[in-house]
This record gives sequence, structure tokens and C-alpha cells, in this order.
Amino acid sequence: MTTISMHAASVPAFARMLGNMLNWLEAAKAHAEAKKFSTDVYLTLRLAPDMLPFTKQIQIASDAAKGCVARLAGQENPSYPDNEASLDELAERIRKTRDFVLSIPAAAFDGSETREITIPRRSGDPLKFEGLAYLQHFALPNFYFHATTTYALLRHAGVPLGKSDYLGA
Amino acid sequence: MTTISMHAASVPAFARMLGNMLNWLEAAKAHAEAKKFSTDVYLTLRLAPDMLPFTKQIQIASDAAKGCVARLAGQENPSYPDNEASLDELAERIRKTRDFVLSIPAAAFDGSETREITIPRRSGDPLKFEGLAYLQHFALPNFYFHATTTYALLRHAGVPLGKSDYLGA
Repeated sequence: MTTISMHAASVPAFARMLGNMLNWLEAAKAHAEAKKFSTDVYLTLRLAPDMLPFTKQIQIASDAAKGCVARLAGQENPSYPDNEASLDELAERIRKTRDFVLSIPAAAFDGSETREITIPRRSGDPLKFEGLAYLQHFALPNFYFHATTTYALLRHAGVPLGKSDYLGA
Repeated sequence: MTTISMHAASVPAFARMLGNMLNWLEAAKAHAEAKKFSTDVYLTLRLAPDMLPFTKQIQIASDAAKGCVARLAGQENPSYPDNEASLDELAERIRKTRDFVLSIPAAAFDGSETREITIPRRSGDPLKFEGLAYLQHFALPNFYFHATTTYALLRHAGVPLGKSDYLGA
């Protein structure tokens, strides 16, 4: 049976979508300029009153990507202070996350499909997974959840984006 | 270098999330009963006027899952007529999709990471990918896009769901 590496199953997916997200923020900026509103308007948008706002969606997408890569590769997970207060600072957060994700050598992922991964939770016992289940049932769906919600908030705000912007070139 | 199979990188992700989606539809049904509105109300909800409605989000998530598995495994992609007209019929579509995804033997995915995958488009040349890039940059993000949008529409409609319902148990 031929197979793929855990690095190949994770890093390119995160890196590609983070790059797409940067393009959405560019489009959001151009839209705000054309319509003459402040890009700060985006930061607090929510899809429902009890869903997290735009800024948080991007911060959590970043955390999902860097946390997954760090945990699978057994590297330190860099801590970012979640203090972004503008669209430009959110773009910088995404760029920094992508740089980190791409910085980890593929060899560090060796054996990570069975590595025990522990995720602390605010309440209750930590979640425990084997590496592959963690990537597949937690990290990737969670990352895409927050990427898609970011995209949906921009679409809701009228930013001219389409599925090809979501998926990237 | 230890590795994972293309089957392991695809089928469990689709099957798990399709199961989660069935649970969301159950919650949507209970919410409509409690609030005394018809479940048909959900079917036409949209996040933006130029985004596709709820019914279509589920149909496309189904197409993304079954199409990916069929193409990677070199099996016939079953054609579903997109005629679901109720929440129950959408649940049946999801169930049927999950059954199909789980029905393909793991061995059929052998070598699919480099298999040439061709996706027809409504206009322009078909998209061509190698199997792994197709799974990673097209099929999975597209599937999660439509799953997340389905979830977001239900949240927008007040259905009591949270991230643990999105990710599943």
C-alpha cells in the first residue's frame, strides 16, 4: 500500500488556506475603501449573537494551525497574545502563522500519526488523541470551521468573494 | 518515514462529519418543534443573498464527500438527483452518502495520492489534480466549507448547537 506522510497531510493544507485568507483580507480592505467604511467594522461582526466575532475567528484559525503543527512535530507551540486590533494586524497574525507552519522540517512529523496528543480544556479533563485522529477529527475540521466562518462574515458584509477565493488558485 | 494511507486520510473524516450533520438536523427538528415553526423554513435560509441556500449546502457537501471517495478509489460516483424537499429527505441524503463512503474497500485507494483526478467545470477547462492535492486542497476544504455553512445557518436560526456538536463526540 502506498501512503503519504503526516507532514504532507497537514502543512500544505494549512499553508494554502492561510494564504487564501490573506487574499480575503485584501479584498475586504478594497471593499471598505470603495464603500467608504472603516475596516474596523469587520472586526466585531458575528454570524449569530452567541458566535465569536471576526477577530476571534482568525485568532482561533491561527491557533488551530500552529497548534496542530507544533503538537504533531513535537515542537514548542508559539504563544501569540491575541491582541490584534485592526485588519492589518490580523493579516500579520496570519502571515506569522503561515511562516511558523512552513518552518517545521518534514522529518519532525515522523511517527506523529500514533503520537499521543493532549489538548487542555477550559473545564474537564484534557482531550487525548492519537496524532492521525487529532489531525483529522479535530485540528483540520476546526481550522476549516474558523476559516469558513471568516469567509462567511466577509460575504455577509458584501465583500465580493467566491468559492474560488475560498479554495485558492 | 512512517506514513498513513489515502483511505485513512479521507474516509474517516467524511464519515465522521456526515454523522455530525445528522445530529445537527435532529437538533434543528427539535428546535422547530419547540418554537412551533415548520422545518421547511430551514431549507431556503442563506447567509448572504448570493450564497446558496441550506438545501444546496447539504447536497454539495454530499457531492464533495462521495465524489472524492469515488474518484480516489476509481469507483463509479453515484448520481443523486438533488430533489430533497424536506429536512427528513436531506437527512436521508446524508445517510446514503455516509453509507457509500464507508462501502469502498480501503485497498481501492492504493496509489491514489498520485492518481490523476479530473473535475469537470460548468465553464472552462476541467480542473486536474494529483490525488493528494485534490483531497487536500479541493475535496476536504470544499466539504468542510459546506458542512460549516450548514452549521452556521442552523446557528443563525437559533438551533442550540456548539463547537462540540460541530466536531462530534
